[in-house]
Amino acid sequence: MSSGRLDIVGLGPGPFEWMTPEAQSLIEKATDLVGYGVYLDRLPAAPGQARHTSDNRVEIDRARAALDLALAGRRVALVSGGDPGIFAMAATVFEAIETGDPRWRSLAIETHPGVSAMLAAAARLGAPLGHDFAVISLSDNLKPWKAIERRVKAAAEADFVLALYNPASKARSKPIHDAFALLASVKPAETLVAFARAVGRLDERIELTTLGAADPSIADMSTLVLIGSSQTRRIERADGGCWVYTPRSYR
Amino acid sequence: MSSGRLDIVGLGPGPFEWMTPEAQSLIEKATDLVGYGVYLDRLPAAPGQARHTSDNRVEIDRARAALDLALAGRRVALVSGGDPGIFAMAATVFEAIETGDPRWRSLAIETHPGVSAMLAAAARLGAPLGHDFAVISLSDNLKPWKAIERRVKAAAEADFVLALYNPASKARSKPIHDAFALLASVKPAETLVAFARAVGRLDERIELTTLGAADPSIADMSTLVLIGSSQTRRIERADGGCWVYTPRSYR
Repeated sequence: MSSGRLDIVGLGPGPFEWMTPEAQSLIEKATDLVGYGVYLDRLPAAPGQARHTSDNRVEIDRARAALDLALAGRRVALVSGGDPGIFAMAATVFEAIETGDPRWRSLAIETHPGVSAMLAAAARLGAPLGHDFAVISLSDNLKPWKAIERRVKAAAEADFVLALYNPASKARSKPIHDAFALLASVKPAETLVAFARAVGRLDERIELTTLGAADPSIADMSTLVLIGSSQTRRIERADGGCWVYTPRSYR
Repeated sequence: MSSGRLDIVGLGPGPFEWMTPEAQSLIEKATDLVGYGVYLDRLPAAPGQARHTSDNRVEIDRARAALDLALAGRRVALVSGGDPGIFAMAATVFEAIETGDPRWRSLAIETHPGVSAMLAAAARLGAPLGHDFAVISLSDNLKPWKAIERRVKAAAEADFVLALYNPASKARSKPIHDAFALLASVKPAETLVAFARAVGRLDERIELTTLGAADPSIADMSTLVLIGSSQTRRIERADGGCWVYTPRSYR
């Protein structure tokens, strides 16, 4: 059995203050860091530590490379933004293992939780995820649009709050428009909608609007979209701002 | 305007290594800590810092007390386990504000994200939340059972992974049995089910089973229940254990 190990680690949404002490410690102890360049760039260089950066579009290759390094006896930290278990690298690693080198199954492999983008976005707004919610990736790269549509519709009809990941990319602008058209056919126009972009980073921008007034084309790869339930509401603050929350009780 | 402030802070699921540096810093800076006893007991005593413990059943009173302390000019940290925005104190604070003293609306009040119990439970298993999922509280203290039932059914029919919070308490054992009966009528008996209890704490216990074989009576207040989608699967490890994950692609 190999002495190598693979820790799948989430850095949180951006700032150091949202990275867990565990993630920090695992990154320090690793002989090799593997990840998308923008995530590795957040981490200070450490003497003797190897870095393997890769483009975001080859996730399964990155997972395989990390597994091979661990098999060669290295101590590998595979880093993601947010939480690695939410539409991120953890599932990719297990996909790779399922169809890959059987020796990978003897490695010490652990996933470690982090603050996910939806929790950070919700915190900025107040407490919009304070009650039942559904989390859906709008990327149709790996699943048929029909499956996405069915879930968006079911979640809207059952009055869940919705958190939409991967709403759009440069190559993929249609899903978010289709999803909003579908939502508008099920939910009232006054439903609260928030576009939370790059929360915790310097270019953070939160746009609060309604389903009737929303322009889905402002969503990009760094945007998390939150759609309220029938109970989600705003509270006006004395300074002209507001908080958004979903109460625990259902009227 | 009062100089007081209220920070709504999550400690994460238990261990210090999952508490964000931000939460730690806010707790250190607070003049007053407010929270349920078991959460405050996790934190070291600090000289000059006041502690206001309360029983878990009076959440709205605890929120009001924290708001009044802030109004009196104190710097208050209201602490929850996990993430304060997920079925926890943040929504309770905004409920209190909506119907309470109008002066509370002029306070500096911020929610701060933490590692939620579902992210910790998922990490321990591998990556069961790697694809679309729905998060439902089974507590019928504040919402009618009909609303819960409708959401569990909709989420099961649309093939979401499910994360069930508050599955049972000493006074409330029926909902989890009713939810499992409903799930068994919609989903195949071989669907993977995990009961993740007290993840990250000394009495952590994870029970992996199937919908057909599950005994829902093992769930208690400290248990997070995960129900797989049709795609959620296990990968056998060389040591006899397994990982559980939900792939990104939908077949």
